[in-house]
Amino acid sequence: MSYQMKGLLYEGKAKKIYETDVDDIVIIEYKDDATAFDGTKRGIINEKGIVNNKISNHFFKLLESKGIPTHFIEQIDERRTAVKKVEIIPVEVIVRNIAAGSLCKRLGLEEGTALKRPVLEFCYKNDALHDPQINEYHILALELATEEEINKVKEYSFKINQILREYLKEVNIDLVDFKLEFGRYKSSIILADEISPDTCRFWDMNTKEKLDKDRFRRDLGNVEEAYKEVLKRLGL
Amino acid sequence: MSYQMKGLLYEGKAKKIYETDVDDIVIIEYKDDATAFDGTKRGIINEKGIVNNKISNHFFKLLESKGIPTHFIEQIDERRTAVKKVEIIPVEVIVRNIAAGSLCKRLGLEEGTALKRPVLEFCYKNDALHDPQINEYHILALELATEEEINKVKEYSFKINQILREYLKEVNIDLVDFKLEFGRYKSSIILADEISPDTCRFWDMNTKEKLDKDRFRRDLGNVEEAYKEVLKRLGL
Ligand SMILES: Nc1ncnc2c1ncn2[C@@H]1O[C@H](COP(=O)(O)OP(=O)(O)O)[C@@H](O)[C@H]1O
Ligand SMILES: Nc1ncnc2c1ncn2[C@@H]1O[C@H](COP(=O)(O)OP(=O)(O)O)[C@@H](O)[C@H]1O
Ligand SMILES: [Mg+2]
Ligand SMILES: [Mg+2]
Repeated sequence: MSYQMKGLLYEGKAKKIYETDVDDIVIIEYKDDATAFDGTKRGIINEKGIVNNKISNHFFKLLESKGIPTHFIEQIDERRTAVKKVEIIPVEVIVRNIAAGSLCKRLGLEEGTALKRPVLEFCYKNDALHDPQINEYHILALELATEEEINKVKEYSFKINQILREYLKEVNIDLVDFKLEFGRYKSSIILADEISPDTCRFWDMNTKEKLDKDRFRRDLGNVEEAYKEVLKRLGL
Repeated sequence: MSYQMKGLLYEGKAKKIYETDVDDIVIIEYKDDATAFDGTKRGIINEKGIVNNKISNHFFKLLESKGIPTHFIEQIDERRTAVKKVEIIPVEVIVRNIAAGSLCKRLGLEEGTALKRPVLEFCYKNDALHDPQINEYHILALELATEEEINKVKEYSFKINQILREYLKEVNIDLVDFKLEFGRYKSSIILADEISPDTCRFWDMNTKEKLDKDRFRRDLGNVEEAYKEVLKRLGL
């Protein structure tokens, strides 16, 4: 099927969202822009948009095949994908298997410490408040989601972790942590946004080399190469 | 019964804990020392120790009578109380009915906003890390408590909120929020530490006047008088 691209609905830090001629379908366009540390660090990662579009669609198709409902419809071209238009729940879900990044600072853990159990965190997606960490009671009190929706989001998130972890193990990648966004579509909850080296921490299982946005955040060099290495390992 | 006071076990910011001649019983001694903002602000609130000892014991007896197991045994003198010695779970539980303090800053709420539902928060009791906010998954991953223990802690905390809120309403006080600590005693979970104007926010229901440690934190004056006003309203 083909969709006619209409007006720009929203331009975010990494993607643009366009309306289409179909009411509940939008087109995501992946940019090369990279930001970090609450938008204070900015840069370009060459061809990131192309790589992330491919990687994210690959994961979304995998997840759909394993029973996770997602917004994915079809890839349109190298940077663009048609997806179901959702009402985004303004809560980011982070799932962690290995301590890294902000968790280490907050809890005094050494980067690389394996967590005894996967840790799920919620952040209030609110730039003005700098995406504060919240819990289920905050979500309910602020009426960001219902209890039923929270339970679905948790169930899907842990299942996604299991699916991706096993899958990435086969290509010698540790899934350290990742961020998800969910949305409401026709009165059900589906996975939206993206899953890519921008939103995950991927480590080579043997060398522990970082294959994700931490290379940009921490100026580790070979950022573009790391993103393409993930693409290659996924056979894309 | 009488207990012989033995060596000092621990001196905290507001209390001292002494061993007794009985193995699993300790004596809490309430001090007049007040601290705030992570220990950076320090002072003395005259007779606070006497007032808090009375208020806390009063609440603990009330809670016991309503089915909440607590560490309370008996008051020894104006500043001292015998309690069951517990292994403290290093997690502070905060229950909030009305937005105040750090919650307002974090979530962009105006102080005094009634929350649609009581909000429960966990903090990791760790001075070096500045008591970071955590959730149930962090508690499990760090093995600070078991899932069963967390469920008991949540059940008790919400029940305590209900009991104290109704009780304080009768003396024209809004229970804005409060902090609890629980401990392990003979393989069950009981309420420990204290419940006082040091650990709660109490507002006069009509004037919204603060009757708690915020008078000290924010230099509002009449700190001692506010603590004694709570004492008086409780009929103590
Ligand atoms: N299926 C979808 N329907 C509607 N909005 C979506 C969908 N998937 C993702 N979004 C939203 O589109 C935006 C994606 O752009 P991005 O550059 O990541 O934005 P941001 O800078 O806000 O993170 C995000 O706000 C995201 O929540
Ligand atoms: N029943 C109890 N058994 C053992 N320890 C307790 C009990 N009740 C409270 N405590 C602990 O005793 C200390 C009380 O002193 P406090 O001055 O409040 O300390 P802190 O500065 O650590 O908050 C706290 O560490 C508290 O966790
Ligand atoms: Mg985004
Ligand atoms: Mg204390």
